[in-house]
Amino acid sequence: MTPSSLETLIEALRCLPGVGPKSAQRMAYYLLQRDRQGAQHLAESLETALQAIRHCQRCNTFTEAEVCERCASPKRDASLLCVVETPVDMNMMEQSHAYNGLYYVLMGRISPLDGIGPRELKLDRLLARACDGVVREVILATNYTNEGEATAHYLSELLKSRGIGVSRIARGVPVGGELEYVDSGTLAQAVRERRPLAD
Amino acid sequence: MTPSSLETLIEALRCLPGVGPKSAQRMAYYLLQRDRQGAQHLAESLETALQAIRHCQRCNTFTEAEVCERCASPKRDASLLCVVETPVDMNMMEQSHAYNGLYYVLMGRISPLDGIGPRELKLDRLLARACDGVVREVILATNYTNEGEATAHYLSELLKSRGIGVSRIARGVPVGGELEYVDSGTLAQAVRERRPLAD
Repeated sequence: MTPSSLETLIEALRCLPGVGPKSAQRMAYYLLQRDRQGAQHLAESLETALQAIRHCQRCNTFTEAEVCERCASPKRDASLLCVVETPVDMNMMEQSHAYNGLYYVLMGRISPLDGIGPRELKLDRLLARACDGVVREVILATNYTNEGEATAHYLSELLKSRGIGVSRIARGVPVGGELEYVDSGTLAQAVRERRPLAD
Repeated sequence: MTPSSLETLIEALRCLPGVGPKSAQRMAYYLLQRDRQGAQHLAESLETALQAIRHCQRCNTFTEAEVCERCASPKRDASLLCVVETPVDMNMMEQSHAYNGLYYVLMGRISPLDGIGPRELKLDRLLARACDGVVREVILATNYTNEGEATAHYLSELLKSRGIGVSRIARGVPVGGELEYVDSGTLAQAVRERRPLAD
């Protein structure tokens, strides 16, 4: 007896991470009953973002331009390339004020259980970026989780075989912790104490 | 450095109940990175539902028609009117197969802390519905929470003053329930509201 457009909306809300059937139903009822204006705004924001947002040609982060502001800035040290998992991690790095180089955002991590390997992460794009002749050092700033560590390990092998200097942010970050939730002082230490990887 | 359309999307996602800034950010990144098709579908479903869904003129539930299928059915007993808080509660009543009358959906409950009183619930519409001359008995099936109880109490006073018969669904030990595991409040009520057994 549920109207079909309502059923479709409930089903569609389940594309959101962490939203199951009960939450989706609650959300749909809430929007239709109490916040139609918010729902309208959400629909329009989704459309706009889907149209406008693409990946930076250089660092792979979300941007509305061909190349993001940061990559286009002449003030950044182009000889340093910091690899992070997500745009949030990049923002956390920036807030630590300990780094003035450029970035590469993986938009994920190697995670065999989720079917995400080197191919899905498009690591060849990172490799091309790191081999542009200007980059002297790649700083691996993936999370210190198991998957982040595996990703860092894989990347370091890949990059070292091409003769590129590789370092890893120091383990000042708690083991099992994620950059997003670390205070910026700790993160600053981790950048300063990055260590070269032995062969 | 976050693109403005992305920031707008993150902000817009916060209209969903139970979604704070961190979840909204996670949802936005997830949709843009991993499920653009789902996001597009969600945007369209929101637009469609906002256009199509309105309230049934008779029972106030969500419907795409003037009057919902259930209210339009000639098979239902129009002399019984069951008052529930939400469309989900109405579905639960239907699944019990114990009721064949009509419904009125409050779309909420009296909750002074949330600023929802009789006026916000538009109880005058329920009153007009109950006084149509056909309804003989109004069955109050609001939840047995504090707010549901307060709503039932308010409604019973309102309806009885118009000379309409009012009843409340029974409260007690659940079917299949064991006294050992029933909370003492429920058991106390079950004792107080015990009913005589016919010979």
